[in-house]
Amino acid sequence: MHYEEDCIGKLAVADDVLYGINTTRALHNFNITTERTDSLIFQSMIQIKKAAAVVNHRGGTLAEQKAKLIVAACNALLLGQHQDDLVAPAIQGSAGTSVNMNVNEVIAKCAMRMADGVTILPNDDINQCQSTNDTYPTAGKMAMLKALPPLLQNIEKMVAVLLDLADRYANVLKVGRTQLEDAVPTVYGHTFHAYASLFRRDLTRLRTAAEALQQINLGGTAIGTGLNATDYYRTHVVEALNGISGLKLALADDMIDATQNTDTYVAFSGAMKVLAVDLSKFCNDLRLLNSGPQAGFGELRLPAKQAGSSIMPGKVNPVIPEVVNQVAFQVIGQDVTIGMAAEAGQLELNAFEPIMFRDLLQNERFLTQAIDTLVHNCLNGLTVNVEQCEKNVRHSAVSATVLNPYLGYAQTTALVKEALAKQCDIQTLLKEKKILAPDLVDRLFSPEVMTNQVPTTESRFVAERSSLQPR
Amino acid sequence: MHYEEDCIGKLAVADDVLYGINTTRALHNFNITTERTDSLIFQSMIQIKKAAAVVNHRGGTLAEQKAKLIVAACNALLLGQHQDDLVAPAIQGSAGTSVNMNVNEVIAKCAMRMADGVTILPNDDINQCQSTNDTYPTAGKMAMLKALPPLLQNIEKMVAVLLDLADRYANVLKVGRTQLEDAVPTVYGHTFHAYASLFRRDLTRLRTAAEALQQINLGGTAIGTGLNATDYYRTHVVEALNGISGLKLALADDMIDATQNTDTYVAFSGAMKVLAVDLSKFCNDLRLLNSGPQAGFGELRLPAKQAGSSIMPGKVNPVIPEVVNQVAFQVIGQDVTIGMAAEAGQLELNAFEPIMFRDLLQNERFLTQAIDTLVHNCLNGLTVNVEQCEKNVRHSAVSATVLNPYLGYAQTTALVKEALAKQCDIQTLLKEKKILAPDLVDRLFSPEVMTNQVPTTESRFVAERSSLQPR
Amino acid sequence: MHYEEDCIGKLAVADDVLYGINTTRALHNFNITTERTDSLIFQSMIQIKKAAAVVNHRGGTLAEQKAKLIVAACNALLLGQHQDDLVAPAIQGSAGTSVNMNVNEVIAKCAMRMADGVTILPNDDINQCQSTNDTYPTAGKMAMLKALPPLLQNIEKMVAVLLDLADRYANVLKVGRTQLEDAVPTVYGHTFHAYASLFRRDLTRLRTAAEALQQINLGGTAIGTGLNATDYYRTHVVEALNGISGLKLALADDMIDATQNTDTYVAFSGAMKVLAVDLSKFCNDLRLLNSGPQAGFGELRLPAKQAGSSIMPGKVNPVIPEVVNQVAFQVIGQDVTIGMAAEAGQLELNAFEPIMFRDLLQNERFLTQAIDTLVHNCLNGLTVNVEQCEKNVRHSAVSATVLNPYLGYAQTTALVKEALAKQCDIQTLLKEKKILAPDLVDRLFSPEVMTNQVPTTESRFVAERSSLQPR
Amino acid sequence: MHYEEDCIGKLAVADDVLYGINTTRALHNFNITTERTDSLIFQSMIQIKKAAAVVNHRGGTLAEQKAKLIVAACNALLLGQHQDDLVAPAIQGSAGTSVNMNVNEVIAKCAMRMADGVTILPNDDINQCQSTNDTYPTAGKMAMLKALPPLLQNIEKMVAVLLDLADRYANVLKVGRTQLEDAVPTVYGHTFHAYASLFRRDLTRLRTAAEALQQINLGGTAIGTGLNATDYYRTHVVEALNGISGLKLALADDMIDATQNTDTYVAFSGAMKVLAVDLSKFCNDLRLLNSGPQAGFGELRLPAKQAGSSIMPGKVNPVIPEVVNQVAFQVIGQDVTIGMAAEAGQLELNAFEPIMFRDLLQNERFLTQAIDTLVHNCLNGLTVNVEQCEKNVRHSAVSATVLNPYLGYAQTTALVKEALAKQCDIQTLLKEKKILAPDLVDRLFSPEVMTNQVPTTESRFVAERSSLQPR
Repeated sequence: MHYEEDCIGKLAVADDVLYGINTTRALHNFNITTERTDSLIFQSMIQIKKAAAVVNHRGGTLAEQKAKLIVAACNALLLGQHQDDLVAPAIQGSAGTSVNMNVNEVIAKCAMRMADGVTILPNDDINQCQSTNDTYPTAGKMAMLKALPPLLQNIEKMVAVLLDLADRYANVLKVGRTQLEDAVPTVYGHTFHAYASLFRRDLTRLRTAAEALQQINLGGTAIGTGLNATDYYRTHVVEALNGISGLKLALADDMIDATQNTDTYVAFSGAMKVLAVDLSKFCNDLRLLNSGPQAGFGELRLPAKQAGSSIMPGKVNPVIPEVVNQVAFQVIGQDVTIGMAAEAGQLELNAFEPIMFRDLLQNERFLTQAIDTLVHNCLNGLTVNVEQCEKNVRHSAVSATVLNPYLGYAQTTALVKEALAKQCDIQTLLKEKKILAPDLVDRLFSPEVMTNQVPTTESRFVAERSSLQPR
Repeated sequence: MHYEEDCIGKLAVADDVLYGINTTRALHNFNITTERTDSLIFQSMIQIKKAAAVVNHRGGTLAEQKAKLIVAACNALLLGQHQDDLVAPAIQGSAGTSVNMNVNEVIAKCAMRMADGVTILPNDDINQCQSTNDTYPTAGKMAMLKALPPLLQNIEKMVAVLLDLADRYANVLKVGRTQLEDAVPTVYGHTFHAYASLFRRDLTRLRTAAEALQQINLGGTAIGTGLNATDYYRTHVVEALNGISGLKLALADDMIDATQNTDTYVAFSGAMKVLAVDLSKFCNDLRLLNSGPQAGFGELRLPAKQAGSSIMPGKVNPVIPEVVNQVAFQVIGQDVTIGMAAEAGQLELNAFEPIMFRDLLQNERFLTQAIDTLVHNCLNGLTVNVEQCEKNVRHSAVSATVLNPYLGYAQTTALVKEALAKQCDIQTLLKEKKILAPDLVDRLFSPEVMTNQVPTTESRFVAERSSLQPR
Repeated sequence: MHYEEDCIGKLAVADDVLYGINTTRALHNFNITTERTDSLIFQSMIQIKKAAAVVNHRGGTLAEQKAKLIVAACNALLLGQHQDDLVAPAIQGSAGTSVNMNVNEVIAKCAMRMADGVTILPNDDINQCQSTNDTYPTAGKMAMLKALPPLLQNIEKMVAVLLDLADRYANVLKVGRTQLEDAVPTVYGHTFHAYASLFRRDLTRLRTAAEALQQINLGGTAIGTGLNATDYYRTHVVEALNGISGLKLALADDMIDATQNTDTYVAFSGAMKVLAVDLSKFCNDLRLLNSGPQAGFGELRLPAKQAGSSIMPGKVNPVIPEVVNQVAFQVIGQDVTIGMAAEAGQLELNAFEPIMFRDLLQNERFLTQAIDTLVHNCLNGLTVNVEQCEKNVRHSAVSATVLNPYLGYAQTTALVKEALAKQCDIQTLLKEKKILAPDLVDRLFSPEVMTNQVPTTESRFVAERSSLQPR
Repeated sequence: MHYEEDCIGKLAVADDVLYGINTTRALHNFNITTERTDSLIFQSMIQIKKAAAVVNHRGGTLAEQKAKLIVAACNALLLGQHQDDLVAPAIQGSAGTSVNMNVNEVIAKCAMRMADGVTILPNDDINQCQSTNDTYPTAGKMAMLKALPPLLQNIEKMVAVLLDLADRYANVLKVGRTQLEDAVPTVYGHTFHAYASLFRRDLTRLRTAAEALQQINLGGTAIGTGLNATDYYRTHVVEALNGISGLKLALADDMIDATQNTDTYVAFSGAMKVLAVDLSKFCNDLRLLNSGPQAGFGELRLPAKQAGSSIMPGKVNPVIPEVVNQVAFQVIGQDVTIGMAAEAGQLELNAFEPIMFRDLLQNERFLTQAIDTLVHNCLNGLTVNVEQCEKNVRHSAVSATVLNPYLGYAQTTALVKEALAKQCDIQTLLKEKKILAPDLVDRLFSPEVMTNQVPTTESRFVAERSSLQPR
């Protein structure tokens, strides 16, 4: 234990940690949960510090020895050392200052340990030309951008699996259902393809929303004016950071705006919310079509993944869609949190970025993992119960819709009511009552006419799948 | 057209309206929608003005002639006259000042028209001892309390209908379904009774939340200190208002708190949100159990209320539960709005009461009407498809759960898998394989044992219904 | 009163209305509120009916006489006749069938009145080749697209006014505030420009989200397969509709998907939610900076729009930002409603489009009007209290940040604490203590250095404004 | 590694863990996050298992040896052993089956290790008379009830501190502010007391909502019918569980309802949401009144808890209220999640209880910790800047409201405008213009009259505090 001092006063700081007084205070102040700031934020923050050291040295405001030590310390941390000292809580006041100072302190001590007798200061050296208010949002955006490709890739995998299912069941007739009631028929090829089309739009929306995250305010320092950042630093740091991180960041046109407004986070959250809504609707459908096995719809058979009940032997439940539903509810709820945090921003800064960053990154990770389990533990083994589908279509009176152009809506309605009352097929009724020629009846009620489509050809989906290569 | 003047300046005011410059400005400023402030708020505000006039006269601060004219004007308005002049927009800034001044102005002009040569001033006479900040919240709470009994009565009607259904179908066996998959059986009597139990808790929650709305800050004037309200007024106005309105209002213990905090609204909104969640779950179940008529669950038959499709003849859809679902979504969304408005309150006042009052009253009315249509257009004509229920139970392998105590979980599991594979009944299988004595099999699979209940007796529900008399 | 019959049975229908049995049933079933379906949905639906009649005639499935009468009836309605007969409730079950049938019935009766002895049927003639499930979503999207330009134009006006303010106050120094605490200074030019930058992103987001609404499923009929729609109709109706409506609609690639999924609505709602969040943050800032006039920040002077209090003489409140805040809360809450309604969609259709369309159109209109009043009743008359701004900057110790590169963070901290304790300026302290040369002190604390910017030139904003011309 | 088998098939299970095949499958299926089910749920579940073993033994359906071993295993786990084997994920499908089976498996293996040669089966022995569907909701409610007292105690501490502050600053005059604009004055005693009153209502709401959680469905097994639970078990298990847990649980009247409906969770979440809204409003006020130190309101001085900026020396920010705000946003967002999960329940069970339980328990813990840091790190050291308060009141023209009864609203308005224009005090103006006698002016503008209150006496708060003793 030793004592450190800041503008508040003296405080005991543990000897066996690399962080200092600022981080120690944060741990006292924000003891809400044991959850630490996301590792991707720490990683990004360290990359910023490394870029800053390199650029400040080149710009002449940081001595070579210091710069080398700082870069070496950053490299050690980026390789995974000292992760236990990156402890700033995920839920915190301070608008990220505790994260920034945690990183500044750890790098400074780590660097000083590498060479005797050199003093490296967290604020003056590590944080040179910087403020929490430009580095922390930049790190947050970098983290979100880094967490996105796995999500996009999993969506792409899901789309590919759905297109496969569309191929496999391209011509399996099924009862359409609107407002949960029997409607005109379609084929399972269409059904799976529709889900694929849905999730492809999610890919587009996520990519569009993520593009806006590439605009950063690094160099704007405290409120975007760039006070205390050198011209050299401001014109070179982004390029250096792109080199280190592999990202494609760019300076915002209006740095004041970029420092205080958090609309791009809300928009990104919104894109994830739409994905969550879509996933939940999809999983609701899967669970409904899988209901049974005897007293339900029974058209789909989701793979059995675990015993469904501690008491009911042999029961199997759709546990994978169920977990995806719950992730979706969480993401939708956190979209409300993110919106409130953004709305609460005041004047030159939004002090509530920590909860936004936490929830945004959590949403990305949750969705990534949820889709992963949905693809591997559910969709991959899903089969259609063709027999049940056929039985349902055969009995469905709504197929009579096809008669409208021949008999008119009113007469067709009367026929449907008669068929339902007699519990017989419309086709049989039409033939019995000799209303239409038997040939015409057969043709009208053929799958091709009822679904009004030429059978889906495989080639189309092959082409679509080939366009799904990860970028 | 004539000109009136206030602290802002001169403004042209229409001659054919009773309101004045303050209201006219509000119409210019808050042209968001044509929707006016809720009529129950206007009614309550006028009752407050009447009570104030009576009390101020008794207290010696309002001349008899003025008081009589004001009371006469209030009575005229309460009887429905001049409603076209109560125009303050539902969505407005001003924290309700525009509503208060609209009422002050209309009463003042109306009163002056009743006698020549008497000057009655909106601020000094009508608003005497008052502020918007105590009259408007009081009127809002009064309006909510007035809109509640119809809602409670409709819930009680729904509970009574559900108990009737529970009686009628007390012993109709049905497949239970957990996680949408077939589970052990129950009877429809239990099912309907469970919904009745659910909505009875909503009655309790609404009543509890509404009780807190009876605490008002009338007499607190601008910020709760009561500045400019006489002692006589402050100690007598609530009693007078209760006499006029028939409500049971009481002064809050902490008038500063009661003037600035809006937690009781959020709690009341929360109680309505739970009701909305419950209604939506109930309607989801109704729609699911009604699905078909051929390719769905088909256990319930909701009454047909309109042709379901412009194209599919004879299609009938569950339109009544569907509209209730949508009302529920609206109430749940408006709960978020109300929460945000409450959170945004600052210091001695919450300026965002207008949107809270609008949404709260809308929620009460929407729920009242939604339950009304649910009871009259859906539950009243609902029947159970007993045949379909029996068929489902007969085929359900999960009934085998009853064997656990005899065969153990593992062996029962094997039996269930065999029955599902062979598509035969468990009972048949047990008898064929001579695993248990035929008598025991019959007894175990009897409805009484499987649902583990003595048959529901009517008397119980009769007693419950009798307790539902409106208070 | 006369009787009409449908698949449900006979019903009395009023003689003095153009609608028929379907609409009458809807009025009985959905008596939730008196609010009717949005007029833009009715208008769009009628445009669809007109396009369908024209195309079906050309395609040979609708007789010339009928087609002419239907077109004439549509034209009459589009010119504003018979609006009282368009009564389908805004909040309804039926997935829009009641809207579609209302329009079908009114057009049919209106057309039949134009010529004796011709029978025109709502389902077979007006609804030919159509279903509610393709016409209603198409009409909903058309309505949203039609309601968007006024919103975009108002945002553009707001941006232009903000750029004007940025020009006017380009060099007025102000204290920056981060986490509500005094921070380094900036100028009001930057502040207003930052808001302009923010709202320009909203324009982009809204346009992107609206583009997706141009993809429609017209011709897909009940579930997207296009059953009962002729090939001629399906390939020609969109072009005809674009001609009539002036919109740029296009057929969706996947009609099954386009019929059942509502993600584009959720995304559009999300874009409006971001705008609402941004507006609310902006209005919070306006109210805060306007606080006072004596015991608050007092840096901005919003124009006085109405007497602020019924009791406190001379009080003026920021009523315009207040109403905008409330609209924002409503839009954010309705985003939750829209998300829930979308999530609740099942299988081949989402039955909850009515509440989505209602809330989406309401959000567009509310935001349009809110921004209109914000621009005209608040921003246009807003002035900066330059004297107060200067006083605040002069006293602010945080300007000392500029000393970091000269004295280091630690020594500067000590100076700030001393200045705060002595309640004196940092500059004075520096000179008294002879820490830095007086010249340097003056230069460092000059506005140019402290805000780290060359003064904003007018030309830049002029260019930006010129790019804002409505498209 | 060894193999175990269930109805799905064989699976490799680690040898060094006490859990078995069901838990292993859950880990594969629900790899969403590393977060495990809340420890209080595990603890409660084990208490249920212990109670069941005791009761089943007494009831004659569990052999003494087995019962003793099971109880011993439960005791070991309750004392903290084997916690590493309680691994069921917090976010999971299965409606809690994975939690129940995790506990069943661990207890069974643990018990068997205690004695050679005894076979104890997870389903038949540990889970005897039970189902996930009654034990898991019961455990969830127990966990919530256990997590509540620390929250209530922290609220009580906060109320006590607020009453202390009310005492200390009972007579310190301050400007009231309504709609953020200067209003009539009050004293800080009132202000702090109002917050205390607010949070006392939260205590009541939480207690009321928690009472409903005491109703459990234990003994209802799979769907509430109690199939496979013996009569002895059903009539004795709750008493046994109360003995073990120290809670006051009771059987629900309607077990079918209690098994499927989750309204009591939504209501409990609603009560926490109101608390979150209240905390956020309070913290917004704290941050606003603390704004400055020079260019803000500056009336409150929150204790400095950490250096506020990495770049601005000496800056101190209100980090404690900031973290509380963010916790509030999270709780409000999770209320949306909980509502959606409840609404999504279907038929005889709600499969989405896991996310509800996770979020509810997280909300309780977050709020508990947030209030703890608010009390200890902020309120305890808070002081009022009396000098600044006095200055603000002295300058405030709105105090003129006190003149209404003497001069009328119109003349007072004119005076206020004159005072604002001349930047002088109203009192001075009145005396200069000889409008009222100097004595009367002095009396009217005395603190006692302006705040319309006798000074707050200490005794009142002392009494209130004494009522706050934890129950």
